Amino acid sequence: MNAVDLIIKKRDGFELSREEIEFFVAGFTRGEIPDYQAAAWAMAVLLRGMTDRETTDLTLAMANSGSTLDLSKVVKIALDKHSTGGVGDKTTLVVEPLVAACGVPVGKMSGRGLGFSGGTLDKLESIPGYRTNLSRDEFITQLKEIGLVLTGQSPDLAPADGKFYALRDVTGTVQSMPLIASSVMSKKIAGGAQAIVLDVKIGSGAFMKTLEEGRSLANLMVSIGRLSGRKVVALLSDMNQPLGSAVGNALELKEAIDTLHGQGPEDFRAHCLDVAGEMMLLGGRVTSTEEGVDLAKRALADGSAWEKFRMLVGRQGGDVSFIDHAEKLPQAPIVQTMKWEKAGYVRWLDARVVGETSVLMGAGRVKKEDRIDHSVGILVHKKVSDLMQPGDTVFTLHAASKDSASEAETRLREAVSLQDTPCQPLPLFYDRIE
Amino acid sequence: MNAVDLIIKKRDGFELSREEIEFFVAGFTRGEIPDYQAAAWAMAVLLRGMTDRETTDLTLAMANSGSTLDLSKVVKIALDKHSTGGVGDKTTLVVEPLVAACGVPVGKMSGRGLGFSGGTLDKLESIPGYRTNLSRDEFITQLKEIGLVLTGQSPDLAPADGKFYALRDVTGTVQSMPLIASSVMSKKIAGGAQAIVLDVKIGSGAFMKTLEEGRSLANLMVSIGRLSGRKVVALLSDMNQPLGSAVGNALELKEAIDTLHGQGPEDFRAHCLDVAGEMMLLGGRVTSTEEGVDLAKRALADGSAWEKFRMLVGRQGGDVSFIDHAEKLPQAPIVQTMKWEKAGYVRWLDARVVGETSVLMGAGRVKKEDRIDHSVGILVHKKVSDLMQPGDTVFTLHAASKDSASEAETRLREAVSLQDTPCQPLPLFYDRIE
Repeated sequence: MNAVDLIIKKRDGFELSREEIEFFVAGFTRGEIPDYQAAAWAMAVLLRGMTDRETTDLTLAMANSGSTLDLSKVVKIALDKHSTGGVGDKTTLVVEPLVAACGVPVGKMSGRGLGFSGGTLDKLESIPGYRTNLSRDEFITQLKEIGLVLTGQSPDLAPADGKFYALRDVTGTVQSMPLIASSVMSKKIAGGAQAIVLDVKIGSGAFMKTLEEGRSLANLMVSIGRLSGRKVVALLSDMNQPLGSAVGNALELKEAIDTLHGQGPEDFRAHCLDVAGEMMLLGGRVTSTEEGVDLAKRALADGSAWEKFRMLVGRQGGDVSFIDHAEKLPQAPIVQTMKWEKAGYVRWLDARVVGETSVLMGAGRVKKEDRIDHSVGILVHKKVSDLMQPGDTVFTLHAASKDSASEAETRLREAVSLQDTPCQPLPLFYDRIE
Repeated sequence: MNAVDLIIKKRDGFELSREEIEFFVAGFTRGEIPDYQAAAWAMAVLLRGMTDRETTDLTLAMANSGSTLDLSKVVKIALDKHSTGGVGDKTTLVVEPLVAACGVPVGKMSGRGLGFSGGTLDKLESIPGYRTNLSRDEFITQLKEIGLVLTGQSPDLAPADGKFYALRDVTGTVQSMPLIASSVMSKKIAGGAQAIVLDVKIGSGAFMKTLEEGRSLANLMVSIGRLSGRKVVALLSDMNQPLGSAVGNALELKEAIDTLHGQGPEDFRAHCLDVAGEMMLLGGRVTSTEEGVDLAKRALADGSAWEKFRMLVGRQGGDVSFIDHAEKLPQAPIVQTMKWEKAGYVRWLDARVVGETSVLMGAGRVKKEDRIDHSVGILVHKKVSDLMQPGDTVFTLHAASKDSASEAETRLREAVSLQDTPCQPLPLFYDRIE
């Protein structure tokens, strides 16, 4: 077996065997197969595709490329949740404490934001002292003791994926369903997940722009789950407009805190309850999503979800006074509102423009090495189908400077379009696949 | 402009502009665009294709990636000839002296053999002292003074092509028409050619296996010629059976010498005369191929072609006594014939099997670094459609050892198939495209 033959086989549209895929992934991880061969192979995969069986084998080969976590002795069912990334998507911050408060332990490794898509770690790091680099032992002990962990991805999990993703990023081979799906699933499986709720975002502020694309990706990941013996449910959710109101790290954390207190934006709360319901169903806590949602509602109402989050922050070294008194969190020096003079129904409120503007303001990264400003961001006060009156505020900008605010304003003018006649609100979810 | 965007543009099937192609080639040549990006790009080109315009721009960008030869002050029309490579293809050794003897100067840079396909340089190096590394000045002076040069490719001509070919070889991206055509044509154009006769070999012993493939490649290279202002004629010639009789370096040189003396195998002589006729037509020496063929026949008959070859060998440092007395050329220790016991008409005599066997005997290279044995090879005594009687000799093996001869014999048994009824001979040429 040699790398060139496998490249040619895929180039010519043939199906690779499990042994061939394992050979390629192992060789690439060890540096025996050079980047240029992996790049040619990735392009061949992108243009020729892979069967679900090949994609599952690729997933497992990458999952097994480094150390793996075995949580089977720690929890009844190792449960995880993954969002494909969006604008204002602070779901994890609410859902994980919520589920844990309902008696279903969850330990999660999250990522950082890149491009217009935010990352859970960045939001948590708005809290002084919060540690996102727990060791494997700390992870397991904490999961056992408080049933909740939110930390960063350990670099020794699925190293093949890390290496391969870095290469795909610079060779135009990111946009491939088998490569995207195997990247997501390999990390989850290496992290020990036996059951996974996937939140596949669809729309302008997501990587999947169309329902069709999102559905293919969801189907593929559910298929990988089935073929690899993991329970997987995928929700297809809207990301044409930002989720909730806040976009930006400390702002989103505040919104998550509000939501954990039973407040927060209606759409975001409903989204979190549904995801939590799905997780409890997969985790065997309830026998229907509805039952899970009811349980979650109670955990919000009785303060137990909030208490769980507080316990998490304290346990991971965060200064709890910053979430008890959220006004202590990083504050941007400039806060100004943006009003619209025209009346009309909101036809479009572009998540991508909002996300990109927040990155420009300093809330996110263009390159991995970029530093971020936790204080800045945007509050979005309208949703598609809302009726606007002249003088209504659409955005509140939290900016580092006047210049930044005015640049953001120029961009955000493009984010909204109005129409004279009423229109339908966007759904929270498009579909559920299992 | 950046490399990833250009990879993605091609990946998605769009046409690249001249500026984009020049940017990519220049960046790759200077090492600013790394191998992994060039590999992904090459795979995208292979699977998505290129328009003739893109392929021409790629050709010119590679041709201009290093120094170029300007022969316009040295000869009236800078004429070149290129064969896509085959088994027993010693055409250059006969055609170039022939054309030069007819008053059309030709200076040619040739390559070495790789795989089942032989190389002109290797054949010439059977002559002790023959230099294949002339400097640019030596090339020009010799072309001026004797109208004939046969040397190796200068490494500073089209360095992008050399670098790119080495990468394609290890990334499964060799088999792409635009990449093959631009590779061939870039070297010719960098070498100063204004008019080129292409000999596109088709069949089992060639890179192009089918007439359809060969025709596409020929059309593409003629198109590059038209779009870049070079006169190009492509001949589609048969390579299902070996050309002439000899396969192996000194053996082929001897056959070329015989042919220059007006003897040699009928098919090979006819092939050379046609190619020479085309060259003289392109070079403006005659007004029809037929006229060129007649002129060439005379140059064989009157000894002037032979004298020209002798002059070439002497001028480039070769010991002329070795071609005057060809028995002095390297001789293999084992010479044995292979007979067939059955009678029948030769239906098939596989050039590829013959070529691969000769490589195995030591006449060619599997890898670029391999050393070759000039003395060994195979003489082929039959052609497709020949009637064979029991006991007829089909091959004479010139081998380095008994073991090598017997291994070759086993392989060559597979090269020939007979049938009871008469069949048509294979044509020398399938088509001519200009």
